[in-house]
Amino acid sequence: MGTKVEHQAFTVVENGTIVTPGGFSAGGLHCGLKKTSRNDIGAIRCDIPATAAAVYTTNVFQAAPLKVTRESLSNGRLQAVIVNSGNANACTGQQGEEDAYAMRAAAARELGVAEEDVAVASTGVIGELLKMDAVHSGIKALPEQLGKETNEAEQFSQAILTTDLVKKEACVSVVVGGKTVTIAGAAKGSGMIHPNMATMLAFMTSDAVIGAEALQRLLRQATNHTFNMITVDGDTSTNDMLVAMSSGYAGNEELTMEHPDWEAFAAGFIYVCQVLAKAIARDGEGATKLVEVEVTGAVSDESAQAIAKTVIGSSLVKSAMFGADANWGRIIAAVGRAGQPVNPDTVDIRLGDISVLSQSRPVVFDEEAALAYLQTDTVRIVVDLHHGEGHAVAWGCDLTYDYVRINAAYRT
Amino acid sequence: MGTKVEHQAFTVVENGTIVTPGGFSAGGLHCGLKKTSRNDIGAIRCDIPATAAAVYTTNVFQAAPLKVTRESLSNGRLQAVIVNSGNANACTGQQGEEDAYAMRAAAARELGVAEEDVAVASTGVIGELLKMDAVHSGIKALPEQLGKETNEAEQFSQAILTTDLVKKEACVSVVVGGKTVTIAGAAKGSGMIHPNMATMLAFMTSDAVIGAEALQRLLRQATNHTFNMITVDGDTSTNDMLVAMSSGYAGNEELTMEHPDWEAFAAGFIYVCQVLAKAIARDGEGATKLVEVEVTGAVSDESAQAIAKTVIGSSLVKSAMFGADANWGRIIAAVGRAGQPVNPDTVDIRLGDISVLSQSRPVVFDEEAALAYLQTDTVRIVVDLHHGEGHAVAWGCDLTYDYVRINAAYRT
Repeated sequence: MGTKVEHQAFTVVENGTIVTPGGFSAGGLHCGLKKTSRNDIGAIRCDIPATAAAVYTTNVFQAAPLKVTRESLSNGRLQAVIVNSGNANACTGQQGEEDAYAMRAAAARELGVAEEDVAVASTGVIGELLKMDAVHSGIKALPEQLGKETNEAEQFSQAILTTDLVKKEACVSVVVGGKTVTIAGAAKGSGMIHPNMATMLAFMTSDAVIGAEALQRLLRQATNHTFNMITVDGDTSTNDMLVAMSSGYAGNEELTMEHPDWEAFAAGFIYVCQVLAKAIARDGEGATKLVEVEVTGAVSDESAQAIAKTVIGSSLVKSAMFGADANWGRIIAAVGRAGQPVNPDTVDIRLGDISVLSQSRPVVFDEEAALAYLQTDTVRIVVDLHHGEGHAVAWGCDLTYDYVRINAAYRT
Repeated sequence: MGTKVEHQAFTVVENGTIVTPGGFSAGGLHCGLKKTSRNDIGAIRCDIPATAAAVYTTNVFQAAPLKVTRESLSNGRLQAVIVNSGNANACTGQQGEEDAYAMRAAAARELGVAEEDVAVASTGVIGELLKMDAVHSGIKALPEQLGKETNEAEQFSQAILTTDLVKKEACVSVVVGGKTVTIAGAAKGSGMIHPNMATMLAFMTSDAVIGAEALQRLLRQATNHTFNMITVDGDTSTNDMLVAMSSGYAGNEELTMEHPDWEAFAAGFIYVCQVLAKAIARDGEGATKLVEVEVTGAVSDESAQAIAKTVIGSSLVKSAMFGADANWGRIIAAVGRAGQPVNPDTVDIRLGDISVLSQSRPVVFDEEAALAYLQTDTVRIVVDLHHGEGHAVAWGCDLTYDYVRINAAYRT
């Protein structure tokens, strides 16, 4: 997993979008939920009911749209997703739930699909009621914006952003039993990324023939190694949601875990998730660089994950990365507090290719080379525990003045 | 516990120090470990071997002095503590261990006590060997600096600081079976507080007659409710250590948990810990204010502690406190991701006396009053879950530009 994804199993489709897989159209527009004129409502529609799966935030306070989407997904099928940005519809009580259901009903009517085949997602301010007038006018105008061209997919990708600086998309193709299957995704970032703003949202489309159970299992596996391995600030939002839909338009023999091309499909699927996850980390609030932490030699993959996430989440490590400071003392301190089995005498740490700690002892290294490396826009921290076979990679970003500015200056 | 400490059980001794309890002398001086001329080595000495107890960092990578101190404390007795700042003697391997033992031997010789009755503590840069020349010259000069006056205690308090802005001291007296017992403490701050710097250190003295086992048990209880409830940046250092010594000079009937005045003594002891812990939180790197989070109505005290620590550790909550932003969405999101049982429909949140969320629904509040309150130097967040009887208080500080500046700009 992680950087070990084998690219030969699939082909990256440059400039591919969520409408590249057969059967999907998408679009977005501005309906008045955001104060600026940026897009704030969008939809993905499949020509036929698609096999679907989803994973949701683990936060106890789940926003209203998640309840509605869970209900729609109970039959393992979706034909459309309706998403708004600018308001998270979280902590909005009974009215919020009614609004989420109304949003689903309106989308079903305007997009010509069954209500129980529509997923609803929201991102934005917590604790305010949705302006339903704007939502209804937006949904009414959506059908004529939907299409199967790159430009229309881009309108959707823009419609789900809040403080994100860039849209996040990825697409690959995989050969399954001689048929070409395409997998794509679009996402917005990064944890609780703005004052009162919430939500990481990601949407994946594919034209593979695949059962709902297999898709759900793959989605969970992919999430564990990608979206669940990123952190910007450690804050899990109330609205996180990842929805995958597969149209079956590729006409391949049904994908199951026993299919000879399952591994290739899974690798491509995970790759799309990983590209989106890394894009979210790199575009974290105030971030100037992507930081990747690879842990090897842990007692298990789970243990390696816990350690990698502790290191990537350390405010001190993140500050050091901002300052391009080869401060391995902070890295080893984070490793040591992760609550995982570690042999205190056998740890190696490398920054890129520069060894700074070997067998838990300081290595004399070229400070200037380390500084130059840490000033690049993608920094890799490798921790080898020499204590087992467990391996994991986590992604995050640096902690900067801009993070504090963005998050302190909201109302003042 | 927390703000519920009953002050009537004990009396705060204004300007009391670690030499106020009978039997203790202290001192400090500059020996050359810090680049500035600030004190960097100090000692506490008891006239007789004192009952002693300690708690240590849970970090896997424990610095060399902790090993030596554990060994000294195996008999439940100490007569002196030798401390240096400027170098943590952490990740220094076999040589570091030899240096810590040499430091103990020199202190024993110069202070005229048994080697196995000396605790050793260090704080400062990780991964560099101690300049033992400086350490030896410092220890040699220490005896004539030791005394029982406030000024000499202050020299000790200064000697243990690194990036701390202020020294941290507290003292109370308690009547035990008609005898006045005094308890005092000195500490330095706050987690991993400086680039490559490590350590929270705290030292407590008392003249109570108390057994080592009772003292150890009380120390652990007090730590759980005070030092373990503060966070500056979530990073647990390799050198954290809290040592308590009790001389018995008060001549009270031995304190056990069955003694009628045990609760009063414990309350005073915990109060001293709490004052020091709060002082560390308030003096966190870059902090402009103390933030206190009280959680009530949790299923247990442990659950309340976990939630309080999640809220106080949230970078988004900390940034909002810096910006004086009454951003309850971040508080409830942190509550919801703490992994604890919470009823999503029954949560109240108050900022000071200002209610912002009631039964998980937004309350219309006076924004200007909230802004004014959040601009004070001590901010209190109260979360009532209405889900049980569990209660806890945690302390921390805001996340500021200065935190990033201090931690990013170390070497560049």
